[in-house]
Amino acid sequence: MTLKDFIGEGDHFARHSGVQVLSVAENYGKASLVVANEHLNAGGVCQGGAIFTLADTALALAANSGLMLTLSVEASISYHRAAMEGDVLTAEAVALCPHPKIPAFEVKVTNQRGELIASFKSTCYTKKAALNGVTGLE
Amino acid sequence: MTLKDFIGEGDHFARHSGVQVLSVAENYGKASLVVANEHLNAGGVCQGGAIFTLADTALALAANSGLMLTLSVEASISYHRAAMEGDVLTAEAVALCPHPKIPAFEVKVTNQRGELIASFKSTCYTKKAALNGVTGLE
Amino acid sequence: MTLKDFIGEGDHFARHSGVQVLSVAENYGKASLVVANEHLNAGGVCQGGAIFTLADTALALAANSGLMLTLSVEASISYHRAAMEGDVLTAEAVALCPHPKIPAFEVKVTNQRGELIASFKSTCYTKKAALNGVTGLE
Amino acid sequence: MTLKDFIGEGDHFARHSGVQVLSVAENYGKASLVVANEHLNAGGVCQGGAIFTLADTALALAANSGLMLTLSVEASISYHRAAMEGDVLTAEAVALCPHPKIPAFEVKVTNQRGELIASFKSTCYTKKAALNGVTGLE
Repeated sequence: MTLKDFIGEGDHFARHSGVQVLSVAENYGKASLVVANEHLNAGGVCQGGAIFTLADTALALAANSGLMLTLSVEASISYHRAAMEGDVLTAEAVALCPHPKIPAFEVKVTNQRGELIASFKSTCYTKKAALNGVTGLE
Repeated sequence: MTLKDFIGEGDHFARHSGVQVLSVAENYGKASLVVANEHLNAGGVCQGGAIFTLADTALALAANSGLMLTLSVEASISYHRAAMEGDVLTAEAVALCPHPKIPAFEVKVTNQRGELIASFKSTCYTKKAALNGVTGLE
Repeated sequence: MTLKDFIGEGDHFARHSGVQVLSVAENYGKASLVVANEHLNAGGVCQGGAIFTLADTALALAANSGLMLTLSVEASISYHRAAMEGDVLTAEAVALCPHPKIPAFEVKVTNQRGELIASFKSTCYTKKAALNGVTGLE
Repeated sequence: MTLKDFIGEGDHFARHSGVQVLSVAENYGKASLVVANEHLNAGGVCQGGAIFTLADTALALAANSGLMLTLSVEASISYHRAAMEGDVLTAEAVALCPHPKIPAFEVKVTNQRGELIASFKSTCYTKKAALNGVTGLE
């Protein structure tokens, strides 16, 4: 199985939230979300949790690209612009520091006009366990 | 309409994610989530985005308890223990600083055994706009 | 040598910044700072870096209280009230999660009136190395 | 007075910490620090508070480049590599979002070899007050 399928199919919450896995490479991940009615908050704009979940999925791709089980230990997100129903959001994760045990990643979320919607930063923890049955990236 | 209903019914993503609004008071909010199959990540534990969305909903209650439109500008979350399918998570938000323009809140997420699952901290921004049609807390 | 002396004397930047180590216990640390002219920023209030350094010193005490070398990997700080020249700030660090490898801590900074000045949260990383020559806490 | 001088001379803690203000432009700031003995922690590497103070000074330049009083409300820092005595650190701050009230900035700290030492992100708050007596950037 590829890492792209392992997360694209195996991450139930990302799927439930409508997040699509786009691509993965060494220390890199990309995912997208089309903002629908179900993603809106009570104020009528895309809820922070939906944007976070999108960023977290791109992170999971990048962080696990070494095919070792890697978990997010903490994350911070800053919101820059509101995302509206119909917007197409893309999250790209890159490594800030490819440390073997506690790597750090940055994720930028942009909309279909290339405007920055959110900035996300996370510290991860790599366990001494290979990703079971995952043999390649995509 | 009460703030509890405004968010409990009007926050589509919280509802879609299975988050239940429990209570709201001045600078205080409480919400819960029963971890189901749809909340799991590819590693088989509750996805960070689901825990974040739960915390963010408790935050929305506390932050809007002055009945002025208040948005989260940034948030950071630290994960302490994994949450498993069947776990009942509760998030409680309290004010760190009840500033009129840029209040800060802290949210603790615990499981049914009272163990700390995650710590969440957020800076918000209060707009010069009352919450339309919301006349009380709960 | 005690951990209190190891950090109180060995942390040059904390000393240079006027931070005083007060006490240490298992997963707990306390330090203080009297805000002087040298701590002010261009706006005439205590600079964020001075408050951060105070919190970071309390963190170092708590995080190393197991007498294993433990480093802060990331930290976030929220400022709630300004601190003025002459204020006496106290930082108390407690464990959010006493994980053997990646523990997390919370630090609250208060002034002499007990008002909350800042909230600080950090993820740490414990190395497989004892603190050389440190045999007790205080 | 220029903003460069206002902060370079008026930020007492930055000066006390050895931080040098290098340049400022619209939504941009740059500062540096030569790691000396007084910046080391008990483990013999550059203390996190010193790196934070450096980043915070670059932030102050960028955040105040509109010549309106702008304060950091919260900040998060991730450490990627240790900095050693003799290292020359440079911090560059850029705007993530030039919002008129709650702008966000990112700061990258690198060493003399261009290696990333730390990533810093901050939400600021712009007050309705011009910077008294400051008439230009540098």
